[in-house]
Amino acid sequence: MPITVDHEARRAALARIAADIIAAKGIEAATVRAIAEAAGSSTKVVSHYFSDKRALLMATYRSATEDAAARSQASQPRGQADVAAYLLSLLPASPPMVRNWKVWLAFWAYATSDVEFAQEQRGQVLNTRARVEDLLGGDPRVTGLDADARARAARDLLTLVIGVSLQAAFDPEDWAPSRQYRPIIERIRALVGHLS
Amino acid sequence: MPITVDHEARRAALARIAADIIAAKGIEAATVRAIAEAAGSSTKVVSHYFSDKRALLMATYRSATEDAAARSQASQPRGQADVAAYLLSLLPASPPMVRNWKVWLAFWAYATSDVEFAQEQRGQVLNTRARVEDLLGGDPRVTGLDADARARAARDLLTLVIGVSLQAAFDPEDWAPSRQYRPIIERIRALVGHLS
Repeated sequence: MPITVDHEARRAALARIAADIIAAKGIEAATVRAIAEAAGSSTKVVSHYFSDKRALLMATYRSATEDAAARSQASQPRGQADVAAYLLSLLPASPPMVRNWKVWLAFWAYATSDVEFAQEQRGQVLNTRARVEDLLGGDPRVTGLDADARARAARDLLTLVIGVSLQAAFDPEDWAPSRQYRPIIERIRALVGHLS
Repeated sequence: MPITVDHEARRAALARIAADIIAAKGIEAATVRAIAEAAGSSTKVVSHYFSDKRALLMATYRSATEDAAARSQASQPRGQADVAAYLLSLLPASPPMVRNWKVWLAFWAYATSDVEFAQEQRGQVLNTRARVEDLLGGDPRVTGLDADARARAARDLLTLVIGVSLQAAFDPEDWAPSRQYRPIIERIRALVGHLS
């Protein structure tokens, strides 16, 4: 069992290194050689953890998504839903989330010509939207929305997050954190009238 | 003079072909060879029109942007500003605009590791935002916004357009045109209270 844990931990560490390379230099730069160099290991070791380039890329994409999921999970107060905190945690207002958005953007472009990645990307959007809907249903400060209104609100809020994030990841000077937060907070306030 | 016109027209036609290839298969696929093949011409002819790969890519990016600018210009009634029509014309609710968004997305990812393209991309966002601000100022149905409110509104509206478009270009089934239009129209209505 320790061997399995170690294997998974090493594989995850290599995927994080690949994500850093992709965020900085694009997907083309994430070669087995470059990852091995950055990890201080050999290409043989990297190849041992990923059956092929495709498996490496998918693990890298999921690594960024899991990193973001852990951060947004940490945004939630124990035993209570806080939809605003969840949405703000997704924004590129910190270096790790800037990195994650750059990784996602690289893969979104890649997905243009790749059916499997396109499906993964759509799934990620739909999962996140479903999570926002759940939080809108569970957040005690959000009241008076029926299921249809929650679905529309979740769609609109995630649209704002994506629109802000793609601009902010590329122009941080024009998008200080307060500028990233404002449209999301205003939109939630408009939805519920009295968010604290 | 006819020779110059012809040269510009042929160069523009090759850039459009390159844009089609990038939208379908990504930037890596837009080789001189692939463009020559799609144009039914030789690599020598393509090389004649672009000094290098970089010049070809920049011309391709600008080709998509100019195509979109012509479409949004056409959305404006003669001698009158219509901010809603302008914003809706930017959405990927038609095949040419789906193509343009796929091209832009490919270059946004590319810009992650390319300073010049990053600057071009930021410039495009700022130009479009300035155009929205102008239209908010000129649209007779939009009243009661001071300069600061117009700046914030332009930022928010373009954020919605980008957020909708990046999702819709990849998941057209989930984003029928009416679903793309709704958040933009609702937001303009909320801004002015009485948009016709």
